[in-house]
Amino acid sequence: MKEIDPWDVKEVKDYDQLMKSLGVDSFSQYTKKLKNAPIEIRRGLVLGHKDFSKIQESISKKKKFAILTGLMPSGAFHFGHMSVINQVIYYQKLGAEIYLLSADLEAQLVRNIDEQKARKIALEEYLLNYLALGLKKKNLHFYFQLNGPRKFKEYQNLSKLASAKTTFNEVKAIYGDITPQKLISALTQTADILYPQLEGIKTTLTPVGFDQLPHGNFSRDLASRMKFSLPCFTFHKLIPGLQGPTTKMSSSKPESYISFDDSEKEVENKIRKYAFSGGGATLAEHKKHGGNPEIDVSFLWLKYLFEDNDKKLNEIYNNYKSGSLLTGELKEILIEKVNSFLKEHRKKREKAKKELNSIIS
Amino acid sequence: MKEIDPWDVKEVKDYDQLMKSLGVDSFSQYTKKLKNAPIEIRRGLVLGHKDFSKIQESISKKKKFAILTGLMPSGAFHFGHMSVINQVIYYQKLGAEIYLLSADLEAQLVRNIDEQKARKIALEEYLLNYLALGLKKKNLHFYFQLNGPRKFKEYQNLSKLASAKTTFNEVKAIYGDITPQKLISALTQTADILYPQLEGIKTTLTPVGFDQLPHGNFSRDLASRMKFSLPCFTFHKLIPGLQGPTTKMSSSKPESYISFDDSEKEVENKIRKYAFSGGGATLAEHKKHGGNPEIDVSFLWLKYLFEDNDKKLNEIYNNYKSGSLLTGELKEILIEKVNSFLKEHRKKREKAKKELNSIIS
Repeated sequence: MKEIDPWDVKEVKDYDQLMKSLGVDSFSQYTKKLKNAPIEIRRGLVLGHKDFSKIQESISKKKKFAILTGLMPSGAFHFGHMSVINQVIYYQKLGAEIYLLSADLEAQLVRNIDEQKARKIALEEYLLNYLALGLKKKNLHFYFQLNGPRKFKEYQNLSKLASAKTTFNEVKAIYGDITPQKLISALTQTADILYPQLEGIKTTLTPVGFDQLPHGNFSRDLASRMKFSLPCFTFHKLIPGLQGPTTKMSSSKPESYISFDDSEKEVENKIRKYAFSGGGATLAEHKKHGGNPEIDVSFLWLKYLFEDNDKKLNEIYNNYKSGSLLTGELKEILIEKVNSFLKEHRKKREKAKKELNSIIS
Repeated sequence: MKEIDPWDVKEVKDYDQLMKSLGVDSFSQYTKKLKNAPIEIRRGLVLGHKDFSKIQESISKKKKFAILTGLMPSGAFHFGHMSVINQVIYYQKLGAEIYLLSADLEAQLVRNIDEQKARKIALEEYLLNYLALGLKKKNLHFYFQLNGPRKFKEYQNLSKLASAKTTFNEVKAIYGDITPQKLISALTQTADILYPQLEGIKTTLTPVGFDQLPHGNFSRDLASRMKFSLPCFTFHKLIPGLQGPTTKMSSSKPESYISFDDSEKEVENKIRKYAFSGGGATLAEHKKHGGNPEIDVSFLWLKYLFEDNDKKLNEIYNNYKSGSLLTGELKEILIEKVNSFLKEHRKKREKAKKELNSIIS
């Protein structure tokens, strides 16, 4: 299980096998049921879940439910972070209360980022972009772990009292190597996940990448032992890094991602230079045998991030597979999409600045 | 070092050797310097210290200092608990700010005592008796760990951020076996010990039994790594339980202690029946060879708790050693002392009830 150490995300190669072995249910039945879902859900990036039927029921019966999600205030906000927030925004539109926290305690403990720097990153890199992407102030409960949510005392005690409900053997079995600060982070994250229940909302969903599965299991086990409702989870594949379909975007490797602050020129350069191609080895070979879109990062980014139109995506898929669309041409399609997205986004971000001030003041 | 596991106090047989091996300095130079000190200090129950010179300086130069002490809200308040509070009251008279906490988080984590029960024990068993013994409301800062002190946020974050400054290997070396809840307790206790510094009082003293030495060392190491001032400690021997000079008073064994709620009859019975005697094996032998006051629990209780008058204590010592004072007679002296103390104390406790209400409301 080292593969899914949540503190050192490695690519996960076989999600089906992983899901089966870890007791995660397939999300496919919900992919169609969810109306007007964002691209991440429609295109199957969200692959697995635990107890999503409770969320489905809350949506269809218009009962109260909450989304609990955290941001890690370290490094730039990039497209690897977009899957979660797009889902959050979607559920907010469906009526969910949104609990959003900046994991500044964890950032300080595990990544050595101090409170002030974490605050700046959380607000200027994350929250501002979230607002620009469509997150609304209404029904949004934002907090810093170090400041705590509204019921700070209950939250803190929950994170500490949870320690009586686990053992080091269990923690080691879930996380592999463990240190005191990782234990504190894990217990605090569990308190974050259960926190909406302290405000009376028993049905909660936390959309996460598969790398967060151990955290999810841990928080569900602790919830059960502390007589809380079991929190629900969805699990999505990570959007690949530029270097290949099984690599990840890493904040410490700027060549692996495109950030929301990258210039048009940087976008061009990064995609042209780094985006892993599934095309033929030579132009002649590509024209003869075609390319493999399934492993082509440019195609995967279009599929999971930028090309919302199914018909257009299919066309690209078929043309690339047949060889009539060349790698360079595919990359130009992606560059155009990314840059027009970012151009629009920069405008929205300017508008969001006022809203940001009203949230934190 | 298993001998001083703070969660399972065993008798410590050789304090001199223990002090040397653990880098604790002898307190003897201060025993005489401290004017009007309580019996615990005058008679050498307080044997060792770390950095007491800072406290001595604060006292003599009338600089601000704080006492930080905790009570464990489990079981009855008995005479084994009196050494600490008598010292605290003494330092309060000398001008110290008193930070007193009820370790209700630890009680819940490690002893499975819920918040409400712990609250009742803390107030009715401990705080009420403390007030009756002479603790004053002025300069007293009382809090429950679960409610936290005034600066609750800083306190909680301190206890969590401290986790980054230690390792499991270190924690294991200090505490032996360790569980998640013991780690949380230890980190929270460190936050308690450092808390007065968050309110600006850099010089602090925590008087503890030798069994708390690992906690003391741990908090000093963490303090140093987190750029806090090193907290000072004094270490006292534990007052023996009735069963013998190297046994302890244990809340779970009523025959080992006398509680502040025991009736006159119970006091008589417990001392007559259980108090370990250092007397001769037979009356004839005792009269011939005398008894050994050093291992006689009745004598030790008179020495460390009830006979304030040095001359009288010496007389008892000599008469017992020579054999002219019999075991039964020695026990009656103790019974009379305990019962007259408790009679007086019960009156004081009635008066203290009003004061208690004004502290907690």
